[in-house]
Amino acid sequence: MDIEIKENERIDDLEYKNLKIIQNENGFCFGIDSVLLSDFAKEIKDNTTVLDLGTGTGILGILLCGKTKLRKITGIEVQAEIAEMAERSIKLNNLQDRFNIVNENIKNIPEILEKNSYDYIITNPPYKKINTGKTNDSKLKLISRHEVEASLEDFINVSYKMLKDKGTLFMVHRPDRLVDILYTLRKNKMEPKKIKFVYPKINKEANLVLIKAVKNGKEFLIIEKPLYVYNEDGSYTDDILKIYNKID
Amino acid sequence: MDIEIKENERIDDLEYKNLKIIQNENGFCFGIDSVLLSDFAKEIKDNTTVLDLGTGTGILGILLCGKTKLRKITGIEVQAEIAEMAERSIKLNNLQDRFNIVNENIKNIPEILEKNSYDYIITNPPYKKINTGKTNDSKLKLISRHEVEASLEDFINVSYKMLKDKGTLFMVHRPDRLVDILYTLRKNKMEPKKIKFVYPKINKEANLVLIKAVKNGKEFLIIEKPLYVYNEDGSYTDDILKIYNKID
Repeated sequence: MDIEIKENERIDDLEYKNLKIIQNENGFCFGIDSVLLSDFAKEIKDNTTVLDLGTGTGILGILLCGKTKLRKITGIEVQAEIAEMAERSIKLNNLQDRFNIVNENIKNIPEILEKNSYDYIITNPPYKKINTGKTNDSKLKLISRHEVEASLEDFINVSYKMLKDKGTLFMVHRPDRLVDILYTLRKNKMEPKKIKFVYPKINKEANLVLIKAVKNGKEFLIIEKPLYVYNEDGSYTDDILKIYNKID
Repeated sequence: MDIEIKENERIDDLEYKNLKIIQNENGFCFGIDSVLLSDFAKEIKDNTTVLDLGTGTGILGILLCGKTKLRKITGIEVQAEIAEMAERSIKLNNLQDRFNIVNENIKNIPEILEKNSYDYIITNPPYKKINTGKTNDSKLKLISRHEVEASLEDFINVSYKMLKDKGTLFMVHRPDRLVDILYTLRKNKMEPKKIKFVYPKINKEANLVLIKAVKNGKEFLIIEKPLYVYNEDGSYTDDILKIYNKID
């Protein structure tokens, strides 16, 4: 293997079809959010085109290349250092033919790539508004976590511009932003069609939400059965073990 | 008891603090929706004023008079026949001092009752848009179920007008309308603060949603733990039995 690994970086085994990822220990490391979103989006059809807005380490694209038969996925990443690291992860997995990275702010994408042309968009955007929560993170983490470079509305508006008519957006976010998300989706003609809430345990409030929206879609929403992460004894639920391919 | 019971009417025992209700067998009979909403709203504080928009049989007001120490609840009902029946249920329960009915379209209420004056609004509005679903119901049921006399936006806009600043709205509705609801609440400065989804069983999609919104409230939403109605064997869950006061 002739892929360079830099200081503070490590290679993690995704324990799925031998896929691997390079992560920077001072940056934003992928979490369960990305794994759940890739599972939620596994209905992606064969031979389709996908845009990943805010690709980060490339985790979503790498997992989707394993889970689906998508033809081509393009990841947009504003931070040069992270974009370059994602490119090395793509090479590490020999996915260069299906997955490429564009180092740009997502807001500029409609001027760079072909509008109204993508079958799917997938995104794990920054969860927090600017100036909320702790902001003493490193700059790498700050941009990944807060809406510094692009707002929720930018992510949704760019999705509308880039998708084909009736194209589908998959997003993971925090439930406390649900009103912002649904309001902004409806306002931008990205109609929410399916929502799944993720609860850490059976008696807790939801801490993640998975959303499917369709460009110019008909108004009708389904709230799927809840997904619980942990059993009461702290072990993973069967639903989570299935998603991580630990059981059938 | 000198309360008249008309043709097609029956008295049902609410099995709670000896409360009773008169229902018309050809009209809309109360369901679990009202019981769950009255439980969701039981945080209503002592000595407060409540407005029930679209009161129907009066079920919500009667249950809330039992579950809370509210001072005064006013039920608005557009259908004269149903309003008159609710008045008889109020007398049947000796609640005339706390619960009164106004036979009006909710849209006219801001011109009749005092605006910006209520602590709480509670509503189980019609779930369906006009011209959707089956509309071969009796006229009584049609008005109760479809947005014939007032739309979702009317219910929310009237709530804003009638509530005090930071006053609270409690609503039950169908999850397939969630985007309409959250969009319209945000647009009308009724900020959603808490949502609880109701699932018929563990592996089913949600079929009811309970929503708390605050007039001019701060943006932050909590998705509460799910409420399941039936166990896998078809019996009621403990959560439901508690709400129905069958167990502690």
